[in-house]
Amino acid sequence: MKLLCSRNQLQASVSTVLKAVSSKTTLPILECILIEARNETIKMTANDMELGIETIVEGTIEEEGQIAIDARLFSEIVRKLPDNDITLETDENEKATITCENSVFHISGREGNDFPSLPDIQREKSIAISQFSLKEAIRQTIFSISDNENNRLMTGELFEVNDGIFTVTSLDGHRISIRNMELKKNYEHVKVVVPGKTLSDLNKILPGEAEEDVIITFSDKHILFEFDQTKVVSRLLEGEYYKIKQMLSSDYETKIVINKKDFINSMERAILLIRESDKRPIILNMTDGKMELKVNTMIGSMNEDLTIQKEGKDILIGFNPRFLLDALRVIDDEEITIYLVNPKAPCFIRDEEESYIYLILPVNFTSY
Amino acid sequence: MKLLCSRNQLQASVSTVLKAVSSKTTLPILECILIEARNETIKMTANDMELGIETIVEGTIEEEGQIAIDARLFSEIVRKLPDNDITLETDENEKATITCENSVFHISGREGNDFPSLPDIQREKSIAISQFSLKEAIRQTIFSISDNENNRLMTGELFEVNDGIFTVTSLDGHRISIRNMELKKNYEHVKVVVPGKTLSDLNKILPGEAEEDVIITFSDKHILFEFDQTKVVSRLLEGEYYKIKQMLSSDYETKIVINKKDFINSMERAILLIRESDKRPIILNMTDGKMELKVNTMIGSMNEDLTIQKEGKDILIGFNPRFLLDALRVIDDEEITIYLVNPKAPCFIRDEEESYIYLILPVNFTSY
Repeated sequence: MKLLCSRNQLQASVSTVLKAVSSKTTLPILECILIEARNETIKMTANDMELGIETIVEGTIEEEGQIAIDARLFSEIVRKLPDNDITLETDENEKATITCENSVFHISGREGNDFPSLPDIQREKSIAISQFSLKEAIRQTIFSISDNENNRLMTGELFEVNDGIFTVTSLDGHRISIRNMELKKNYEHVKVVVPGKTLSDLNKILPGEAEEDVIITFSDKHILFEFDQTKVVSRLLEGEYYKIKQMLSSDYETKIVINKKDFINSMERAILLIRESDKRPIILNMTDGKMELKVNTMIGSMNEDLTIQKEGKDILIGFNPRFLLDALRVIDDEEITIYLVNPKAPCFIRDEEESYIYLILPVNFTSY
Repeated sequence: MKLLCSRNQLQASVSTVLKAVSSKTTLPILECILIEARNETIKMTANDMELGIETIVEGTIEEEGQIAIDARLFSEIVRKLPDNDITLETDENEKATITCENSVFHISGREGNDFPSLPDIQREKSIAISQFSLKEAIRQTIFSISDNENNRLMTGELFEVNDGIFTVTSLDGHRISIRNMELKKNYEHVKVVVPGKTLSDLNKILPGEAEEDVIITFSDKHILFEFDQTKVVSRLLEGEYYKIKQMLSSDYETKIVINKKDFINSMERAILLIRESDKRPIILNMTDGKMELKVNTMIGSMNEDLTIQKEGKDILIGFNPRFLLDALRVIDDEEITIYLVNPKAPCFIRDEEESYIYLILPVNFTSY
């Protein structure tokens, strides 16, 4: 095989596929990327058996062929080479020669015939969504998946399509995050659970252009994301996802509107007094026009008054401030609305159109 | 005690003294900073018994007094408070109340009478040097101290004053770094060894203004740095420093001039093939007008040709590339000159005026 690519093009492609390279594996082939040059196309693939990424590299093929090459080493070499044309050539012993300006590297590769190919997914059930929207939907929900492998479904996110609405949901037992987005047209119903790791890796390589679409294809066991010159394939998590609908309610006794930035700043100060191991809540006392925020721990105490607009009953309620902060930090609105029922019922942070809904369970604070 | 300070002023002062707060200590008082308000001066002090820092805080004293307060907690609170005036008030039980806008913190402090005071150093033997020069001298030598506590003197830097020249030297058994600087006048002879930790902490808080001086005062056991509103006192390392002079020689058989950036880039690529545990050198083959750089390891091989100007004999010599990189990265010149004798003798990187001298021992490469 002999190829010629620009260093910047090669670097971009390697960084893209690198997300699907196993970091801990007993199979050396999974630490490699497969580079194939055939039919006037240079293709680069990585596959850790859960997640696979394939991308097309622009360049010139002088001789067809393929090689599997250590992904991290190749990526580092390309990154450190000067910004010029790179030649990649392999010989019959799978030795790769990388040449750029005055620099010549020789590294050993593998034939690549044992490289696991990506599953072939038929584009039968697909939707189109802008790169920007998908990236936002993931960013605004991914924080509330669980990292507890005993509840495997909680480590993923529910993707649902209902007519023209695309919904992403995550939950970890203490809170639920939901993001609803309008699609450009109506589609067949879809309900699948996508591994959280797939989504956070996808979010790192998805450019996020508002004008460019991602095509998402669903099969029984896999999900395929296609954008630009890249394909990302992931296994789905199997099983019945939690029934969310019955936990959502639009009844409330208290509704408050508060400046998001002020509320965040205040809680960021409050958590200085709460050690990681300490489950102590912040206590919010909501009365007409004012919310008092209090925390009292071994380290010290803090209280602050924040201006709010309130409708309905006064309420005194405790929360884990980190859960509130996680939600508030991903909301783009300057003012947020919180709906409450009583000190033992979850609160809801949501906008009018329910484009986002964050449910957070309160903490019993009478013992503190 | 009751004080009023701007949040930014307080934050700057706390960050300065924080460098001298013990991170691992069994004495809780050493995790505190002492704040004293007396005689119209607010003073903040930290002391880990090796290094002490004292700084004057601008502000208003409404009631004199003192308190010792947990340094990290206080620093974090100040950092998170809004950019406005902060009031710090203490009561008879050493409870501190920190107020800023709508935010009120209560944290427990200590009386501070057991806070270790900084040694009192007479300004008998002092020199003046610009903040910029001192900062540069430290930056350009600190990388070659040793972290091996068995050779305590190697963990420090030699500070010498000879007439109008200030010299900073560090060495670790494989290399020596020397920085010579002209002082504005002649001073009495000084030769002391300053702990490396003191110097790296000092470098983080020294503003580095070219127009502002640092006054350095030497006593038998201590060194004192004074700049702006801040004093830094450190113990010295005791013992006879290594004889450097006899290791320096101005004889050479080969002299080369090379572009620093090209040489750095080339070595940064070469080290991709060298694992941390691997002692394999890079091999430099210097001939007329050209230096070939080669490395050959388990991972692969690389070779590059670099343009040089050469005087004297051809030479083939091996080095640990990290030692060359450390020196090259702190040199400001675009072109550097390397003096060599033979493959077993150290090389010297130095400028004409010897404002810097880097001696680096070669590595025997015949076994590779």
